Amino acid sequence: MKKVGIVMGSDSDSPTVQKAVEQLKELGIPYEVHVYSAHRTPEEVRDFASNAQANGFGVIIAAAGMSAALAGVIAAHTVLPVIGIPCSSNVLDGIDALLSTVQMPSGIPVATVAINGAKNAALLAAQVLAVSDPDLSHKLVAMRDAARSAVLEKDAAISERFAASRISA
Amino acid sequence: MKKVGIVMGSDSDSPTVQKAVEQLKELGIPYEVHVYSAHRTPEEVRDFASNAQANGFGVIIAAAGMSAALAGVIAAHTVLPVIGIPCSSNVLDGIDALLSTVQMPSGIPVATVAINGAKNAALLAAQVLAVSDPDLSHKLVAMRDAARSAVLEKDAAISERFAASRISA
Amino acid sequence: MKKVGIVMGSDSDSPTVQKAVEQLKELGIPYEVHVYSAHRTPEEVRDFASNAQANGFGVIIAAAGMSAALAGVIAAHTVLPVIGIPCSSNVLDGIDALLSTVQMPSGIPVATVAINGAKNAALLAAQVLAVSDPDLSHKLVAMRDAARSAVLEKDAAISERFAASRISA
Amino acid sequence: MKKVGIVMGSDSDSPTVQKAVEQLKELGIPYEVHVYSAHRTPEEVRDFASNAQANGFGVIIAAAGMSAALAGVIAAHTVLPVIGIPCSSNVLDGIDALLSTVQMPSGIPVATVAINGAKNAALLAAQVLAVSDPDLSHKLVAMRDAARSAVLEKDAAISERFAASRISA
Amino acid sequence: MKKVGIVMGSDSDSPTVQKAVEQLKELGIPYEVHVYSAHRTPEEVRDFASNAQANGFGVIIAAAGMSAALAGVIAAHTVLPVIGIPCSSNVLDGIDALLSTVQMPSGIPVATVAINGAKNAALLAAQVLAVSDPDLSHKLVAMRDAARSAVLEKDAAISERFAASRISA
Amino acid sequence: MKKVGIVMGSDSDSPTVQKAVEQLKELGIPYEVHVYSAHRTPEEVRDFASNAQANGFGVIIAAAGMSAALAGVIAAHTVLPVIGIPCSSNVLDGIDALLSTVQMPSGIPVATVAINGAKNAALLAAQVLAVSDPDLSHKLVAMRDAARSAVLEKDAAISERFAASRISA
Amino acid sequence: MKKVGIVMGSDSDSPTVQKAVEQLKELGIPYEVHVYSAHRTPEEVRDFASNAQANGFGVIIAAAGMSAALAGVIAAHTVLPVIGIPCSSNVLDGIDALLSTVQMPSGIPVATVAINGAKNAALLAAQVLAVSDPDLSHKLVAMRDAARSAVLEKDAAISERFAASRISA
Amino acid sequence: MKKVGIVMGSDSDSPTVQKAVEQLKELGIPYEVHVYSAHRTPEEVRDFASNAQANGFGVIIAAAGMSAALAGVIAAHTVLPVIGIPCSSNVLDGIDALLSTVQMPSGIPVATVAINGAKNAALLAAQVLAVSDPDLSHKLVAMRDAARSAVLEKDAAISERFAASRISA
Repeated sequence: MKKVGIVMGSDSDSPTVQKAVEQLKELGIPYEVHVYSAHRTPEEVRDFASNAQANGFGVIIAAAGMSAALAGVIAAHTVLPVIGIPCSSNVLDGIDALLSTVQMPSGIPVATVAINGAKNAALLAAQVLAVSDPDLSHKLVAMRDAARSAVLEKDAAISERFAASRISA
Repeated sequence: MKKVGIVMGSDSDSPTVQKAVEQLKELGIPYEVHVYSAHRTPEEVRDFASNAQANGFGVIIAAAGMSAALAGVIAAHTVLPVIGIPCSSNVLDGIDALLSTVQMPSGIPVATVAINGAKNAALLAAQVLAVSDPDLSHKLVAMRDAARSAVLEKDAAISERFAASRISA
Repeated sequence: MKKVGIVMGSDSDSPTVQKAVEQLKELGIPYEVHVYSAHRTPEEVRDFASNAQANGFGVIIAAAGMSAALAGVIAAHTVLPVIGIPCSSNVLDGIDALLSTVQMPSGIPVATVAINGAKNAALLAAQVLAVSDPDLSHKLVAMRDAARSAVLEKDAAISERFAASRISA
Repeated sequence: MKKVGIVMGSDSDSPTVQKAVEQLKELGIPYEVHVYSAHRTPEEVRDFASNAQANGFGVIIAAAGMSAALAGVIAAHTVLPVIGIPCSSNVLDGIDALLSTVQMPSGIPVATVAINGAKNAALLAAQVLAVSDPDLSHKLVAMRDAARSAVLEKDAAISERFAASRISA
Repeated sequence: MKKVGIVMGSDSDSPTVQKAVEQLKELGIPYEVHVYSAHRTPEEVRDFASNAQANGFGVIIAAAGMSAALAGVIAAHTVLPVIGIPCSSNVLDGIDALLSTVQMPSGIPVATVAINGAKNAALLAAQVLAVSDPDLSHKLVAMRDAARSAVLEKDAAISERFAASRISA
Repeated sequence: MKKVGIVMGSDSDSPTVQKAVEQLKELGIPYEVHVYSAHRTPEEVRDFASNAQANGFGVIIAAAGMSAALAGVIAAHTVLPVIGIPCSSNVLDGIDALLSTVQMPSGIPVATVAINGAKNAALLAAQVLAVSDPDLSHKLVAMRDAARSAVLEKDAAISERFAASRISA
Repeated sequence: MKKVGIVMGSDSDSPTVQKAVEQLKELGIPYEVHVYSAHRTPEEVRDFASNAQANGFGVIIAAAGMSAALAGVIAAHTVLPVIGIPCSSNVLDGIDALLSTVQMPSGIPVATVAINGAKNAALLAAQVLAVSDPDLSHKLVAMRDAARSAVLEKDAAISERFAASRISA
Repeated sequence: MKKVGIVMGSDSDSPTVQKAVEQLKELGIPYEVHVYSAHRTPEEVRDFASNAQANGFGVIIAAAGMSAALAGVIAAHTVLPVIGIPCSSNVLDGIDALLSTVQMPSGIPVATVAINGAKNAALLAAQVLAVSDPDLSHKLVAMRDAARSAVLEKDAAISERFAASRISA
């Protein structure tokens, strides 16, 4: 199976990225994690992105905050799908990173997920790989079913609790 | 090759969607276009999304404005990658559609592109299909090269024009 | 009396919803509470909404955060009035949920209240039911009178306290 | 049938309000339209709102722009459901009116619809009246069916047009 | 001297209002403080505002959060200058209150100060009264001089501290 | 009577300022109009503001766009009340000017009116002068009465027009 | 004298950049203009930036819209001062470009000017070069004096016009 | 070497400014730090700025929050490059300060850095001085190299840690 490359712009994004990693592990998808900054290590970003396809990657996830150029710069160097996670930082709640990540000019798309949405970035990467991988597709369907069941269990518990509180009122 | 499904929430989004269609045609990717509204025709949205994988689709693009639930609702019914185009409408410049499209809860990702970014939605769909399609991948690389050359031609023209204006000043 | 249906998109919205429930209990209005997600359990949302009128509901309250599609999707499946509570989440202070909830397309309204405004959602549901229920209407008037008195008591205490501080200055 | 009262804060909101009026007429719901300003004619607003229930109104729609206090002030004087339409004005695209209308304090809800969402305000008013009026409820269901059919006709036309363009490409 | 009336929309605004009161006390300006809500006690707001001029008030300060109609509603009932303090609440950092307070329609101005800017509201009230009160005007000039000196003392301390750190570096 | 000083930061603000001038003329309040920029003519701003009280001004109105420092800088040099009009410019709809004008630090208030709210700035200036001028106060009350009558005339016309349309429907 | 390099991300930014060029010409500062895109021609951006110092540039101006990575990417490859002009595009009024340009991570600054502020970008470049160029510094002072005189002429004309209108009223 | 002047609008900005000072010290650049407020000590701001060039300053850094007029007012009195640091305060996350600082009118630029971006302000000041100072330029290049190495060390540690976790999974 092709690997998922995960690049974070700063090691301070590591806790966010962790959630993506866990999701990929749960799905048995191989991955590599790197700390490369579009602004502080532009050469490494370029090298990683330019060679990603040849190095066996199928999708790249990029997590960055503030003026989040990372995903876009990676996307400029590869035709692999690039998924951007806008990370919130000390101020502005990540709206700067969201706009920097999603408002890409025509020709170079970045598949943007929610602010700090690392788990969804991993799921989206899996969905991309699953387009040509029926087994992975089945795993994703099973995961959806499990998520649905989890919600319904919560529904059962909560609807009952509130019903009881109504009667006791 | 798997098809790309394009769904718009209202026929008023048709001029935006047109740009995605043209891009897919240029790349020789088969597609189908529909007008289905998450709010006015929820059953059709569900049916389309639930059966998309079985019906030969590989990726789905959803374009909608305002409270843009369309991409998310489609994503809820399929594990195919869903690409969301937030469309601007009369007020707010599409910021409502952007937040509605991108801020998906954990478990159901939508790959969001720029406001009105229909061409990039098509390119992203192509990049997803190209993960397992070397020919398409090569086409995308060639398209990148052409885009690069187009910029450099513009650079030559503009840098010369401004240089001339400097000398004549 | 017709019931009020309360649906939350995630059990993390439960503390917010609790305030709506307490208000309904205080007014003696029957209710049911559910956890259904527009994205994780779309079928349950549809079934609940489609059958709500037949099942004795008169109004539905939907509480959700982020890309808050829940109220809109419920509204798509019923002509009962649907009241949306945009819930704040980790970032953006609920502005994403507010825009997702309120900016509904023509044809499918959602009656939106303030961010996290669960108590007002319950009061609005009561006001809707009270249109054809004079007893409930009288209760609401009495509650308004009590709220007015509570403000005036606070006014008496605070105006006196500040007056005293002025004299002592 | 109870009447719907429509109040606009300025006659410049008249084109917006017109869309609500047309919707009510189509549904055969009686209505009255007024120009009262929360700031320029506060007494008339108060009198209208205080007596609305006694005067046969079942729901009130208030349309106002900028610091849109109108809906909230009406809501302060009646327990009838009050629906607020935030109107866009020369600057800010109605975000001032939206926040002023929706962010009501606890105790006095306003059912807020989209910016300039006059048609939906009328539909919401109809939905409120329909809670105790099965005939009106049926009309609303029929209107939904018609809207659904209209979308599907557009889908047929557009999907065919794009399919043809694909073949001819 | 004419009094300054201070009205807060909720007793939760009391800590903010406190800073205005302290400033007025320091300047020897008489004041009265009230808790009146535009939405929960509209009659009291109207009575207070309508009679303010006759009751010896020269300026009114209104502090409110969220859909902050208070200042505007008071201004609708008096031609005394009304100063609005937008108060921040749990979400949105007071941007809702700021827009609700400042975006008044033509004809009914509210003199708006910064979010939570209670001290400045009191100073502005004093400046208004000082237009016809040379003694108060002199007090305000003296207060400005003192504020200037305080800044310069801080400048002396800080510039020295940083200079020392430079040398020791 | 004390004069009102009106300062605009750029002659491009002249059409906005015109509305303030007309309002002052209608009220018979003397005024002077200047073009001074906080950034391009800081000395003139300082001289004007520092001498305003001695030169017979009672209130100053400052209109500026973008990084609208003008009102604040004037306020820094006088204890006269300073009214700020945030002017919209090519982008951002005046939100930059609004925040720059209203978010003054503690000690130096600016009485901010709505974006482009020049007429209200003039009315607020009149209200300030009227605190010690009963004749002007009476004029303002009469103007309010006239505004109220104008709304009621519009109400009569519009309510009748819509009533007629209802009958004819 | 060192040259100013001006890079625009797209030839659609050419009208904006034109204003910077005119300002530099007026000051007699040599310049070069290029069209290079951070996303479509990343190699050219890198080459230009990496060699800028050696090629005789003293300052670089970068103009870009949307996810405006250009200035930051240039800054990543040079220690020359980089001035960023956020350009407005079809939606969002340039707020996306402003945040993308200014919110740079620690270590790689971009000197950001106003949205579409091309003339100021050129002036800032001149000010940077003037730090070590007294002649250029004198030119800038003279230009300031001329700008001041222009404002004062406008003041004379406008203050007289409004004074005349007052008398004639 | 020319000095860098650092001015903060309030001593509460001191912790932010501290980061700029440390950066300048590390680079061996002489500096002076002052507390001057555009609104509370306008004369001192003017005197400092007007004489800065004569007093041996080459660049000025201004840090201020809210209606951050400081950088612009300094820029109005000198042709030295002025770098603005927008500081966040209690509400709005510094967006008010950012817009106040960056949206300067034509003719008077302020080189704006990120919200609270004090370290980058110092680096930008150094880059400006380095235009004519090769030694300083070399120091900046060395610092970039060190920053790059630091990122790569983090990359090594993190990529290894995640790789290990993958194997152990």
